[in-house]
Amino acid sequence: MGSTGMNETPGITDQLTWIAVDWGSSNLRAWGLDQHDQVIAQASSDKGMLTLKADEYEAELERLVGDWLPTAGPIDVMVCGMAGARQGWLEAAYLPIPTRLDQLSQGAVTPTLTGDQLRVYLLPGLSQTRSAATHFDVMRGEETQLAGLVADTPDFTGLTCLPGTHAKWATLEAGAVSGFSTYLTGELYQLLANQSVLRHSIGSDELQDHACREAFVSAVSEIYTAPETFSSRLFGLRAQDLLDGRLPAGDTRGAVLAARLSGLAIGLELAGACRECPTDKPIMLIGNQALSQRYALALNAIGYQTQHVDGDSAVLAGLCLAHRALKA
Amino acid sequence: MGSTGMNETPGITDQLTWIAVDWGSSNLRAWGLDQHDQVIAQASSDKGMLTLKADEYEAELERLVGDWLPTAGPIDVMVCGMAGARQGWLEAAYLPIPTRLDQLSQGAVTPTLTGDQLRVYLLPGLSQTRSAATHFDVMRGEETQLAGLVADTPDFTGLTCLPGTHAKWATLEAGAVSGFSTYLTGELYQLLANQSVLRHSIGSDELQDHACREAFVSAVSEIYTAPETFSSRLFGLRAQDLLDGRLPAGDTRGAVLAARLSGLAIGLELAGACRECPTDKPIMLIGNQALSQRYALALNAIGYQTQHVDGDSAVLAGLCLAHRALKA
Repeated sequence: MGSTGMNETPGITDQLTWIAVDWGSSNLRAWGLDQHDQVIAQASSDKGMLTLKADEYEAELERLVGDWLPTAGPIDVMVCGMAGARQGWLEAAYLPIPTRLDQLSQGAVTPTLTGDQLRVYLLPGLSQTRSAATHFDVMRGEETQLAGLVADTPDFTGLTCLPGTHAKWATLEAGAVSGFSTYLTGELYQLLANQSVLRHSIGSDELQDHACREAFVSAVSEIYTAPETFSSRLFGLRAQDLLDGRLPAGDTRGAVLAARLSGLAIGLELAGACRECPTDKPIMLIGNQALSQRYALALNAIGYQTQHVDGDSAVLAGLCLAHRALKA
Repeated sequence: MGSTGMNETPGITDQLTWIAVDWGSSNLRAWGLDQHDQVIAQASSDKGMLTLKADEYEAELERLVGDWLPTAGPIDVMVCGMAGARQGWLEAAYLPIPTRLDQLSQGAVTPTLTGDQLRVYLLPGLSQTRSAATHFDVMRGEETQLAGLVADTPDFTGLTCLPGTHAKWATLEAGAVSGFSTYLTGELYQLLANQSVLRHSIGSDELQDHACREAFVSAVSEIYTAPETFSSRLFGLRAQDLLDGRLPAGDTRGAVLAARLSGLAIGLELAGACRECPTDKPIMLIGNQALSQRYALALNAIGYQTQHVDGDSAVLAGLCLAHRALKA
């Protein structure tokens, strides 16, 4: 159980105006903000939704931010992510798309607390049913990152991608989500690399040298062009390891095959996500730097330009927007 | 460690002419044959390649068929499958395609034995390199099932499918394999159903009622038409479970979603395997009845006719063909 923070900094309790929290499946991060939405304190823990019962959230939050709190209260806490799931603290029902991203706080729910120092708002996720699109989909947490885009550009229009275990692609029109798709890319990669027959061939995946980047990019292009070959190219990786005399030896061999597997998985995602999109507008990547760079490499290879917004900055900006809307 | 057989039947040792063995990763099956290639004894065990060291194969074989053997020897044992892999008993190097299926015994290797009652031949698998096709691929064991087709029809020409954990599709031209592809379909299904986020939604997959068959067939058609949507439709299954009010309740719910997942995985395989094939000739399915019926349902849905050959009969017929070729 980790806890990091700046709890010792003097003056926090004097300046603290509200608290922003991104409470995911496997961890939570909290920011203390002043009246200008400037971060004056930070803390995090590994008590994500998967490890907490509904009646344990309040105590965990107080443990984490208790030192920040002034004696006069209560302090608003704006929470996004899995804490608002049905199996979380209290369900904040999905808002159906299309939904304006500056209106998320309209779907917030407030759990009943035992103490009186905090007033908690759990933001909702977004849902898409077959009446709105070709397939069912849900997001919870990512909508707040998307709201971060809208905080700067209220009428943002464009295609956005949030890489990850369950990568999300969302189309924004004038500040509203009009459609989205989730791709199991990260989870698919992990299962195949660690638990399938391919585990005998896959090494560590860093894209560190030229051979790896080349294997990655050519796999992306291959599957982007012919997504129907995905399943056979997976086994082909194993066969290549057995047969291909031109593969390098040692650790580089596993790294090249890992890069190829990553390229196959991301190529399949791109085939689904952006095949029919115009190439004249950049795709907005929201996420951590390493993964966003990998996606930029893949997207550039198939003719798309990208822009990058840091995922942590985006979620904090989205929580600020939601808090301002609540107070307006 | 299981062993079944008819070892007590009198007269086996008098009639036994040779022994056929299908020695796979997780089990082996042995048949005792008379001079007319009629089965007069059968035995099996769970001592597959994955559980044996190279110097343990001979003892396991003797344990299984020792009672069948006449005092005068030695008796030929024709073995196909993973016993001939590099990590098996002794490597029988892959034969590169194109290879005539009645010539497999030309690549057989004979391990040195400690006893003198047996003479073992390990049949080779087939390999495909980039000089012969668009991708690397290997098979070991399935080539002998394909040889079973050729035993009846020496110049067999057509498209064949061997469903399974690693489904194989092979194009045969005048009794030779001219190209093949392996699809990770069965393994992909198992990983997704049991170890991904989808495990919360997936029930038992039996295709027993109309709703399941309908979900299966429509998923096949959906991915066959648009394979690029595969990864997003996977997550869509989870979202459908959360959002779709029309899904049945109880066990049927999980069964319908399992059928849909199976349809997505098989649909992706069919998109790769038979999109550009003529529909005027049936596809030959070689395998067990339940899986072959599932594939027939999928193939019929996208306009293909099928024929079915039992997988056990095929491998035995292939081993007989290889033994006859050896003795010719």
